[in-house]
Amino acid sequence: MHEECGVVGVSFKKESPAALSIYYALYALQHRGQESAGITVHDGVQVRTLKGMGLVPDVFNRGDIQKLKGHVGIGHVRYSTTGGSRIENCQPLLVSFKSGTIAIAHNGNLVNSRDLRTELEKEGRIFLSDSDTEVIAHLLVKELMHNSLEDSVKELIRRLIGSYSLVFLVDNRLVAVRDPLGIKPLCIGRIDNGFVVASESAAIDILSGQLIRDVVPGEMIIFSNGSYESHQLVKSRNAAHCVFEYIYFARPDSIIDGELVYNTRMRIGSTLFEEHPVKANIVSPVPDSGITYAIGFSKKSGIDYMEGLMKNRYIGRTFIMPGQDMRETAVRLKLNTIKPNIEGKSIVLVEDSIVRGTTSRRIIDLMRKSGTKEVHMRVGSPPIISPCYLGIDMATREELIAAHKSVKGVEALINADSLGYISIDGLVKSIGIPEDDLCLGCLTGIYPVEIPGERCGKRQLKLSEF
Amino acid sequence: MHEECGVVGVSFKKESPAALSIYYALYALQHRGQESAGITVHDGVQVRTLKGMGLVPDVFNRGDIQKLKGHVGIGHVRYSTTGGSRIENCQPLLVSFKSGTIAIAHNGNLVNSRDLRTELEKEGRIFLSDSDTEVIAHLLVKELMHNSLEDSVKELIRRLIGSYSLVFLVDNRLVAVRDPLGIKPLCIGRIDNGFVVASESAAIDILSGQLIRDVVPGEMIIFSNGSYESHQLVKSRNAAHCVFEYIYFARPDSIIDGELVYNTRMRIGSTLFEEHPVKANIVSPVPDSGITYAIGFSKKSGIDYMEGLMKNRYIGRTFIMPGQDMRETAVRLKLNTIKPNIEGKSIVLVEDSIVRGTTSRRIIDLMRKSGTKEVHMRVGSPPIISPCYLGIDMATREELIAAHKSVKGVEALINADSLGYISIDGLVKSIGIPEDDLCLGCLTGIYPVEIPGERCGKRQLKLSEF
Amino acid sequence: MHEECGVVGVSFKKESPAALSIYYALYALQHRGQESAGITVHDGVQVRTLKGMGLVPDVFNRGDIQKLKGHVGIGHVRYSTTGGSRIENCQPLLVSFKSGTIAIAHNGNLVNSRDLRTELEKEGRIFLSDSDTEVIAHLLVKELMHNSLEDSVKELIRRLIGSYSLVFLVDNRLVAVRDPLGIKPLCIGRIDNGFVVASESAAIDILSGQLIRDVVPGEMIIFSNGSYESHQLVKSRNAAHCVFEYIYFARPDSIIDGELVYNTRMRIGSTLFEEHPVKANIVSPVPDSGITYAIGFSKKSGIDYMEGLMKNRYIGRTFIMPGQDMRETAVRLKLNTIKPNIEGKSIVLVEDSIVRGTTSRRIIDLMRKSGTKEVHMRVGSPPIISPCYLGIDMATREELIAAHKSVKGVEALINADSLGYISIDGLVKSIGIPEDDLCLGCLTGIYPVEIPGERCGKRQLKLSEF
Amino acid sequence: MHEECGVVGVSFKKESPAALSIYYALYALQHRGQESAGITVHDGVQVRTLKGMGLVPDVFNRGDIQKLKGHVGIGHVRYSTTGGSRIENCQPLLVSFKSGTIAIAHNGNLVNSRDLRTELEKEGRIFLSDSDTEVIAHLLVKELMHNSLEDSVKELIRRLIGSYSLVFLVDNRLVAVRDPLGIKPLCIGRIDNGFVVASESAAIDILSGQLIRDVVPGEMIIFSNGSYESHQLVKSRNAAHCVFEYIYFARPDSIIDGELVYNTRMRIGSTLFEEHPVKANIVSPVPDSGITYAIGFSKKSGIDYMEGLMKNRYIGRTFIMPGQDMRETAVRLKLNTIKPNIEGKSIVLVEDSIVRGTTSRRIIDLMRKSGTKEVHMRVGSPPIISPCYLGIDMATREELIAAHKSVKGVEALINADSLGYISIDGLVKSIGIPEDDLCLGCLTGIYPVEIPGERCGKRQLKLSEF
Repeated sequence: MHEECGVVGVSFKKESPAALSIYYALYALQHRGQESAGITVHDGVQVRTLKGMGLVPDVFNRGDIQKLKGHVGIGHVRYSTTGGSRIENCQPLLVSFKSGTIAIAHNGNLVNSRDLRTELEKEGRIFLSDSDTEVIAHLLVKELMHNSLEDSVKELIRRLIGSYSLVFLVDNRLVAVRDPLGIKPLCIGRIDNGFVVASESAAIDILSGQLIRDVVPGEMIIFSNGSYESHQLVKSRNAAHCVFEYIYFARPDSIIDGELVYNTRMRIGSTLFEEHPVKANIVSPVPDSGITYAIGFSKKSGIDYMEGLMKNRYIGRTFIMPGQDMRETAVRLKLNTIKPNIEGKSIVLVEDSIVRGTTSRRIIDLMRKSGTKEVHMRVGSPPIISPCYLGIDMATREELIAAHKSVKGVEALINADSLGYISIDGLVKSIGIPEDDLCLGCLTGIYPVEIPGERCGKRQLKLSEF
Repeated sequence: MHEECGVVGVSFKKESPAALSIYYALYALQHRGQESAGITVHDGVQVRTLKGMGLVPDVFNRGDIQKLKGHVGIGHVRYSTTGGSRIENCQPLLVSFKSGTIAIAHNGNLVNSRDLRTELEKEGRIFLSDSDTEVIAHLLVKELMHNSLEDSVKELIRRLIGSYSLVFLVDNRLVAVRDPLGIKPLCIGRIDNGFVVASESAAIDILSGQLIRDVVPGEMIIFSNGSYESHQLVKSRNAAHCVFEYIYFARPDSIIDGELVYNTRMRIGSTLFEEHPVKANIVSPVPDSGITYAIGFSKKSGIDYMEGLMKNRYIGRTFIMPGQDMRETAVRLKLNTIKPNIEGKSIVLVEDSIVRGTTSRRIIDLMRKSGTKEVHMRVGSPPIISPCYLGIDMATREELIAAHKSVKGVEALINADSLGYISIDGLVKSIGIPEDDLCLGCLTGIYPVEIPGERCGKRQLKLSEF
Repeated sequence: MHEECGVVGVSFKKESPAALSIYYALYALQHRGQESAGITVHDGVQVRTLKGMGLVPDVFNRGDIQKLKGHVGIGHVRYSTTGGSRIENCQPLLVSFKSGTIAIAHNGNLVNSRDLRTELEKEGRIFLSDSDTEVIAHLLVKELMHNSLEDSVKELIRRLIGSYSLVFLVDNRLVAVRDPLGIKPLCIGRIDNGFVVASESAAIDILSGQLIRDVVPGEMIIFSNGSYESHQLVKSRNAAHCVFEYIYFARPDSIIDGELVYNTRMRIGSTLFEEHPVKANIVSPVPDSGITYAIGFSKKSGIDYMEGLMKNRYIGRTFIMPGQDMRETAVRLKLNTIKPNIEGKSIVLVEDSIVRGTTSRRIIDLMRKSGTKEVHMRVGSPPIISPCYLGIDMATREELIAAHKSVKGVEALINADSLGYISIDGLVKSIGIPEDDLCLGCLTGIYPVEIPGERCGKRQLKLSEF
Repeated sequence: MHEECGVVGVSFKKESPAALSIYYALYALQHRGQESAGITVHDGVQVRTLKGMGLVPDVFNRGDIQKLKGHVGIGHVRYSTTGGSRIENCQPLLVSFKSGTIAIAHNGNLVNSRDLRTELEKEGRIFLSDSDTEVIAHLLVKELMHNSLEDSVKELIRRLIGSYSLVFLVDNRLVAVRDPLGIKPLCIGRIDNGFVVASESAAIDILSGQLIRDVVPGEMIIFSNGSYESHQLVKSRNAAHCVFEYIYFARPDSIIDGELVYNTRMRIGSTLFEEHPVKANIVSPVPDSGITYAIGFSKKSGIDYMEGLMKNRYIGRTFIMPGQDMRETAVRLKLNTIKPNIEGKSIVLVEDSIVRGTTSRRIIDLMRKSGTKEVHMRVGSPPIISPCYLGIDMATREELIAAHKSVKGVEALINADSLGYISIDGLVKSIGIPEDDLCLGCLTGIYPVEIPGERCGKRQLKLSEF
């Protein structure tokens, strides 16, 4: 199951209802998954779940939220790419077992999910969904049969290979766990009468809360009325924070592992100019993802920042796409050129990343048709040469243009006058986290965990370390 | 989980698509469950499922049915009364396990579901739904780990107490199983290029098929390309066919355990006159369920059959119900009196059964307001004195009016001039099946299986019999 | 515009809300039109309208009804056959003019609608819909510019040729008008605190009201707080009540022009036996429309009434229809045979009417396949040989089987062992209204109003009569 | 009727289908109206219309667009503020009259609509909607009864007071008309095989067309196969182009009356700094409307452009708004602060306009809570002191904060450290159109047309001029 997700948990001291706060937090995380949404709450006696396909405001109405009674709860938004958009795969996953109920919300991707599933099936266990989360539920319950919560989660971590930021309810206890490499983000915050744990700090902001800190890789946090306790279950020599959260996935107003995403992108833009200086009339972003990079580039270079492309805000799922004879319309449905801003000019066009190259080509063609003299493409990520197995829906190796072509080759393909990617060094410095604590798998082909057929970095996690 | 359901399975010889036939068969069984519907098909390689809340035509569109590729499949319609109308409880339940997939559709109610669940949870197993079906899935997979299908189902039957007509797919094999007492109906039919198994023969009719026979209590039938094999797994001394299928639940055009429901109801109507003769101007049914009884009563008594009440066909879920000041309108939304037909007349009013008595009271009040001189109520079932634990959603013992009042008491409560229930003997003779092969639990309080706090008939199934 | 409709008006004495009562009355008239529904109310100051496509419960929710404040109002349900299912054609039609507002709900069909429209267009008037109702609105407003309401409606009647039962609001006055021939039904009733006017008395019943009387052909009734005044605007020598309301369209529990529809149909059934006696084992209706006829036939003939066909209740719009290879399934989706009831038997099959003959053929084929020995078709209407121009959606002359074939020819085509239609005389006597006061256009080809290309009965209305 | 709208017309040379092009053009104009959408097309023989409530992609599906056959057509998007969101008011308005059909799409607001309506009602005319468009339809048809199209439209213009950009079909002729003052925008473009006329040039861009020119105030353009003819029906000494199209309403990538909106906003930003210089750490927009202004301000001032507020993209209609206890969340649902970017800093906050002041106050409060040291508000429009009667939904005079408070008063109310509005002179120079050719009604209280109770500029249109 390849999926991108956002998770949240809320624990209130008093009998304040958690569901509405979870709803707003999920809304702040909507960019992490638009396919399904779910909330599970516990009122001390009973657990209640509601989930459905669609955006957060479409899945829940006021009456639903009022019926979801409970002072503690978790929520999930999800996007899936492998056709697994079945309602069965929506989260939180609610399971009942010998001692009660567990509801799990999971962000990440297990690399050994298939093996674990096979192993569990050999024991006679059955699966009702395709999700990694059901695998996690089985493993967790197996341990909880004879172990404490702490020991159970410790054992769970020992078994899981991959990325996982977990938020779960064991009856009415809220628990947060982050994988030993801290691949996907997870942070905790203080809100009125309680605490919140979420994939990104923007979800804390929306509840007018204060970011306390990130969950430490390998840490388990248990929230209870008015306090929380930390359990550092395992400790890895290094972290492997996903660089793509900074490059593309996270909101610019989120602070992840100590770094404001906005600032990282500004610095990348700045570095991009240093590494690939160019003379031009204006710097223009591919909206929205290129905006912050372009502002950084403009500031460093002194070249005026000006929008040359306008994004259409209303595009939705049910749109009737044009046929072959209106191919240009298909591009313009998303982006229109502001012709007078780019006509006859040399433009630095700034994008966050190039995956297949087709979109960049179409945009540059459109700009040239509007009379742009020169297009100098600058890209906020290094060439992506290898797929992601750890939670970003990117592309297959076959589709990744930089896996098959040199920079010059990509430059020709996208029809740019010049093309400059940020270097890996430049990226790492811009993020401000040591290279050894980042996952650069998609940029280097060297992954922080063992993945069949791929190289694993020596410095990274071995199961035997536990 | 208290639920009423309908199940169907289709196995085609050639590569004919099964989904559309299952769709029509489910449509013919729609009266058995209007809350959710689901279809699972297998094409020899892959299993595909689609299910959702609502009526059959609302859940599936043409595109869905076309995508459900496969020559073998099962379907399910469901109605639940215990608030368990979660999408997770919709069937077929699809599980994957060590050796492949199993999809299960279940009609009936397990009495020992809670015990089995607890036992399975003690082994560390987890549950993702509230349904009996997930319990069945666990037990079946446990056996299939080390046993043949036949032995596994045999062991499954040994463990389950209650009613169950099961239709399931083990990979692409269609299997049908009926509980050793044959409580809920299940029959098989021949159709073009294949076979069908269904809760009622009306589902065979809609596919222009021929009813072959009922599945025998305790029998397992495995369908394969162009044939089927029977395995009589267990044999009980007696059957315990549900009398309420004849009285109310099944379609009149279905043949169940050899008896046409329509004929049974005609004979009940006839017997009702013999047991409770009355002089009157006309015989009138409470539509629709009383119609066939009334025709039988009329024929035997020679009293003219004439409709005195007209049913409104369009009433739906989303209807705005009137407030206290329009109480009479609430009744008339469902039933209107044909005033000239009943004004000044003595009426024999025929109903299939009386549960709480409130509806009967309202109807009789309405008739009296329209000028009816006398209302003689005749009822196609004996007094219902005990709840059903085996698959009919009836009422609690507290709600059952006949559990607390004598016939005279009920007569007074519903404001009838006279009240006559058919006797248990009369009912049994009208059905034409020996009393020892019927479940009369709701009429006698003596059940064919052991139910905590209730009496179990000596003649009936003991687990030790296997 | 060919359309079938139902209309209702409610006038309350006090400030009771009218919308909910109109909602229920429309619901009781739902059989007269399932395509759109609308309600307009007036609270003395302001007029409010809500209308939409779909069934009554789908168009209005509780909040809508609460917002429709007003103690007087009208409602409309509509079915259209000429592709005119545009929201613009939904009724009530609300127009504002010099002196206020008029809301109109119309049941019927104008024969001279096209001419009137052309005439109005010549005056420079514009039309925003295709409906007859907008024509009526123009004509009425033209008169109201310089005439009293009474004179205006009188003049309106002089101009309209065709059938029309009108219910309208002139500001907050409720007015009902029936065409001078009384072609379509319209009746008035007393309810708590007010009055109701409706297409059928069943709509009065649902409000627990008492039928007062039919609106007289050519009469205008104006309702005001606590009373109503009658104005006999024009008087025709004869009426021309539509026989098809009795045969098919109206509810059996409605009383139309003094005759209970149910009784009429019983008498037709009885007469059918007298006119076309036959020996048979059972009498069976084509449900639902043939039921009352069959009961009447059974009573007169002494042949047992027994259902041989079972109607499926759940069929809806969105149903996936089977392809050519499942043609029989297409029939069985609507009707299933109760095989044991008809196998080896001679059956009198009773239907209300035969239009194209295709449905009858399919049903008889199905019965023969189920083993019926003989099928004797008896039909509650005489042969339909001419189209309806006055408000019943029937078929074109080309499609009407009896317009082209003799009774023997139809008998052969539908594959019946014998076929008997009721005679026109028999029908007229069964209805109990003098032939001169009925519209028999579809049965005789002689219409009560002048229709280009068709014959007009001498006895009928001439415009010069006014 | 107070409404904002967008209009489009497409005329193809050959038999190319117009509906899909209209659909895309409407999509490009979606920002001008999100409440309803409609398309009318003509195929030379027949006219077809489809309209409905909602966004363009929600109103039309692929099948609808395919059924809308015709090579010429018009479209409309609409937003209404006066509760008139009835389906009857959706456009295009399709009317039939003596000589054929007219379909009208209208952007603007008539000031004398009520008078015209009364006048037409006095003639006995009726109205089925509340819209100005129906008034226009009546007037146009009245003239077309005895005049040529040119003379009719000329007379129509003589009667209408207010703003109107009209696109209409007279049978299959596409006609565009702009009011003599050119208040609302309207431009024409060349596309493959035909022409397009639209409210904004962005709708031409999306069809890969070339902007030809604006429709001249008082001009009528008739499009026919492969060409168009211009008729300058009336000529006013001056134009009165709406300044709010430049300030807020139009897309930045549109060119209106010769000026690119983006450039105008950049120049306003630049002028704002000149008029109200300030020292600060960064310039930050209120997104999205303040972005271009802020870029212009930054460029002129040399102060770094940096985003301090992040807009949430997913907010929709059905959102559950928080209660009083979560007031801050209500603001943050739309805008989150990027705390590290604004903490401890002096910020120039740039907004397009201040209407009520409440939003500005909430944003500044949020920024101060995030630690902003100083907030210097700079506003792209002068103080709005008077309501708009000509097509912009602004506010009543009571609600307009600048109608009641001085700049210092507003500064205090919104809690800014300083507040600077652009001057009217600065605005006019930034737009680049002579002041005499602009409508500044909302800024000066002097309107280009006579509005009861308001002042009318001497230089402006008098009806006697025609």
